[in-house]
Amino acid sequence: MHLDALDTPCALVDLDRFERNATRMSDRAHDLGVRLRPHVKTHKCVEAARIQTRDHFGGITVSTLSEARGFAEAGFRDITYAVPVAPQKLREVVEINSRIDRLAVLVDHMATITAVEETARPFAVVLPVWLKIDCGLHRAGVDPESELAIALATRLRNSPQIDFRGVLTHAGQSYSVASREEARAVARVECAVTRSFVERLAEAGVAVPEVSIGSTPTISAARNLDGIDEVRPGNYAFFDVFQQTIGSCVLADVAFSVLATVISVHAEHQRAVIDAGALALSKDPGPTHVDPACGYGRMVAVEDQHPLPGLRLTSLSQEHGVIEGAGTAALRPGTLVRILPNHSCLAAACFESYRVVRGTDVIDEWKPFRGWSGC
Amino acid sequence: MHLDALDTPCALVDLDRFERNATRMSDRAHDLGVRLRPHVKTHKCVEAARIQTRDHFGGITVSTLSEARGFAEAGFRDITYAVPVAPQKLREVVEINSRIDRLAVLVDHMATITAVEETARPFAVVLPVWLKIDCGLHRAGVDPESELAIALATRLRNSPQIDFRGVLTHAGQSYSVASREEARAVARVECAVTRSFVERLAEAGVAVPEVSIGSTPTISAARNLDGIDEVRPGNYAFFDVFQQTIGSCVLADVAFSVLATVISVHAEHQRAVIDAGALALSKDPGPTHVDPACGYGRMVAVEDQHPLPGLRLTSLSQEHGVIEGAGTAALRPGTLVRILPNHSCLAAACFESYRVVRGTDVIDEWKPFRGWSGC
Repeated sequence: MHLDALDTPCALVDLDRFERNATRMSDRAHDLGVRLRPHVKTHKCVEAARIQTRDHFGGITVSTLSEARGFAEAGFRDITYAVPVAPQKLREVVEINSRIDRLAVLVDHMATITAVEETARPFAVVLPVWLKIDCGLHRAGVDPESELAIALATRLRNSPQIDFRGVLTHAGQSYSVASREEARAVARVECAVTRSFVERLAEAGVAVPEVSIGSTPTISAARNLDGIDEVRPGNYAFFDVFQQTIGSCVLADVAFSVLATVISVHAEHQRAVIDAGALALSKDPGPTHVDPACGYGRMVAVEDQHPLPGLRLTSLSQEHGVIEGAGTAALRPGTLVRILPNHSCLAAACFESYRVVRGTDVIDEWKPFRGWSGC
Repeated sequence: MHLDALDTPCALVDLDRFERNATRMSDRAHDLGVRLRPHVKTHKCVEAARIQTRDHFGGITVSTLSEARGFAEAGFRDITYAVPVAPQKLREVVEINSRIDRLAVLVDHMATITAVEETARPFAVVLPVWLKIDCGLHRAGVDPESELAIALATRLRNSPQIDFRGVLTHAGQSYSVASREEARAVARVECAVTRSFVERLAEAGVAVPEVSIGSTPTISAARNLDGIDEVRPGNYAFFDVFQQTIGSCVLADVAFSVLATVISVHAEHQRAVIDAGALALSKDPGPTHVDPACGYGRMVAVEDQHPLPGLRLTSLSQEHGVIEGAGTAALRPGTLVRILPNHSCLAAACFESYRVVRGTDVIDEWKPFRGWSGC
């Protein structure tokens, strides 16, 4: 089927680009001497994760227990749930962990460690746990220079209910950079903060089994990952306009797009409306720190995805996207258009399934694991 | 079940508030002498639409053909699909229209009228069509002062394949106001532009069967709707922080909220993290034109929803929400929190179902119609 036969709005995965992105990151991980545990939150699809883990150990990272359960049932046996675990979710973690080799969780607080122990003890199980540290994002994670960080690691190491997996961080501040060089500098910080903490722990008598870092911008830019065992980039699978703008990729790497239809044209005002709004693209504002006029994605040609600078997607409401520019003169109600989104993780999450294309041929359909609880 | 037993993140509908909002708008419509055709895109649930249409004629407005099909199958027989219809979707419109009294569509372009005629003719059917005019939003809709607007209406009136329903507009610019008084002024423009166009059409010999206007801010504020037959507000069912900020409602009217769990606490930095991120709240920036520091919603007490000004939801990533403020001192991993979102239509769209509560008792679950095509 040619993609022009699809109902719109529709999510498209360009399989050639996706495979190229997967291979490039796989090769990078080998070259840098680290294991690749891709974060599958970007797509949440079994087919995509299988391609990303080829030639690697098969471990993945997830952002919800719905993903953990779905990927476990699909045969993935080594999963890290990379959001600090809520105490209430630990019963479900114990259950999923019992079916596979390992569902590891993250903690950054004493109360959560207590909850892990109290949940695991009645089942006489040992849960795999990473200590999450903050390397500058200031979201989750314990300050690695604090005494609390040493105390948390010591307790994790000594708990009979816990299999201490090591130290994990995510340099999400890399999304604020404006270039690949700046991302590389953040990667150096990510590594340095983590290595320094591991040394402090060694002085305190706490051996760290492994060190895991993440983020597509830093791993795409890093030249040296000495002291790091594992990386967890996710967005690189699809990339998007944000990653292109900050230098992680070029526009021709973006493997996720939204197909839409023109529904209103006001050529005299150089304006048209498409049937992809906030519920098909998300309201992610994009890389406004680099390009304040970036709008809500990049318009590209339907067939070969070359950029169309004469069309700008300037605003979104629930089911309307407004396009402006001289290029609107060529549009009619019914014209198909294609958009590379600002943030592919959030745009992909708008859809119940993605149509997989090679060129303009629709060859497959992938269904992501949606929602949160996997019960 | 008490709501504290729910898995998070979870969408909550406060039924007392919802019913009060529905009754108030129903009464307003009666008082203003107009029919109420609620826009159900905010919730997309049959149970909610049944409550909203009590004491009215039963017509509803939808934003997707998935909604149109779902509500038609649930017994709703008079539906307006209030997004300019894409030519490719007309086959499905014909099919759904054949099962109920009326599935009306919107047009604002000659090419779309041609498509309506060409699709309807082989089936020997007459499709109900509204002419969409622009009353100042500059999104979809023909300029009512243009010659094109007269030509479109004339053609709709004369087409054997079309049941011309009338003139329809949506004053979406009312979302840019800062007060109820300003919304009232927009409502006056919405009515005046529409009435003036109807007069122009009468002079041109085109009778307009009905006039339909919309938007929660304008209908909530309007004092006079002379010349208007029908109103299509939608957001009023749930309201949200945006509508409260611009004066459409008070915070105690907001009937939709998200329940979340604290997963990380860094009291020394007055910061905590919750398990509701962009995929549970949307990245709608909220009423930044009135309150640049509005953040991503309003934190309220779990039990009685009183505002908690000591907690601000300052940033969202995919599955993390960051809370800041002195109130974080009282939080622990596992603490439940509740958020009134910036934009309830977009936040509700993040969930496969909503838990319906009276006070803190969970009494029902509503499932919305998701996606676009209803095939």
